[in-house]
Amino acid sequence: MSTGESSEPGPQSVTGPRINKGLVIVNTGNGKGKTTAAMGVLFRAWGRDFKVIMLQFIKHSTANFGEQRAAQKIGVEMRAMGDGFTWRSKDLDQTADLARAHWEDCKEVIATGDYDVIVLDEFTYPMHYGWIPVEEVIEVLKNRPEMQHVIITGRHAPQDLIDYADLVTEMNVVKHPYHEGIKAQPGIEF
Amino acid sequence: MSTGESSEPGPQSVTGPRINKGLVIVNTGNGKGKTTAAMGVLFRAWGRDFKVIMLQFIKHSTANFGEQRAAQKIGVEMRAMGDGFTWRSKDLDQTADLARAHWEDCKEVIATGDYDVIVLDEFTYPMHYGWIPVEEVIEVLKNRPEMQHVIITGRHAPQDLIDYADLVTEMNVVKHPYHEGIKAQPGIEF
Repeated sequence: MSTGESSEPGPQSVTGPRINKGLVIVNTGNGKGKTTAAMGVLFRAWGRDFKVIMLQFIKHSTANFGEQRAAQKIGVEMRAMGDGFTWRSKDLDQTADLARAHWEDCKEVIATGDYDVIVLDEFTYPMHYGWIPVEEVIEVLKNRPEMQHVIITGRHAPQDLIDYADLVTEMNVVKHPYHEGIKAQPGIEF
Repeated sequence: MSTGESSEPGPQSVTGPRINKGLVIVNTGNGKGKTTAAMGVLFRAWGRDFKVIMLQFIKHSTANFGEQRAAQKIGVEMRAMGDGFTWRSKDLDQTADLARAHWEDCKEVIATGDYDVIVLDEFTYPMHYGWIPVEEVIEVLKNRPEMQHVIITGRHAPQDLIDYADLVTEMNVVKHPYHEGIKAQPGIEF
């Protein structure tokens, strides 16, 4: 019988030789849950005493987001891209520069091997906008420590990244409360 | 400004009157991330000191799942349905009875108002299989404490539930590593 999230073939149901390796996971699509699911994975991995970090390519407008508070409470590191940056910034050149600078930091974090799970949150956008070449990203992922898991979130995941990734999920909106005049709820959506 | 997951219209970008209310959220579809995203919301809400609980309609075959360890580490309550139950059980009558008994417990948890966020994990299945009437579930949700958020996960969410819910996301598989002979990875997928 099928068992949900668990209805994926699990370790118990798998036969034959299986490879043990770090995964490249992409959460994309227009729906909610891309960052949230990545955070769920971080939390789960932290539960197993994995070393985890979230590197964010969106600077949120407030430091009070639930995930930041939660991460802080359990000592999980989150690093956001350049101070005061927003996606509505009129200065796109500056935005591109900030994204590239943050990517340089990310590359170091990846290369050190200090982390078991790394989330590159909203990282699809700089690739989508052509600020960071997808080919370079794939090269970095290919050369990363073997057992390291990398999770990339955001809309418009480039096709080359999807082709390279091990696990790709698309989150689609079926119904959204903003359409019905309901506010984003603290603790739930941010 | 809009911020990422977050690139959904956020509280700052919305004009006009907005309703403040507890949401009914459904994570469905055949992909990964349904339970994981719910866990991410729990974690985020916990970060804001909300009282949260996860009520699981799948008894996982091991108690060592990362989310259970993580939840335990931060003191978040998780209650699984009947002992020794698995979805591989051959005795479907017993399974249905266990699901119904667990639902009775859930109804109490909902009614007390002790929790701000309640996850009913894999709860779509007992509805899908006709063990628990969707109409009854919707009645219970209608009568729940006003500000309480309820998240329901699982494949095959019944249409009536989707119609009633505030936020529905479908998680779809684009690419799955099991198809390529890679094992489920501890800390990432369980």
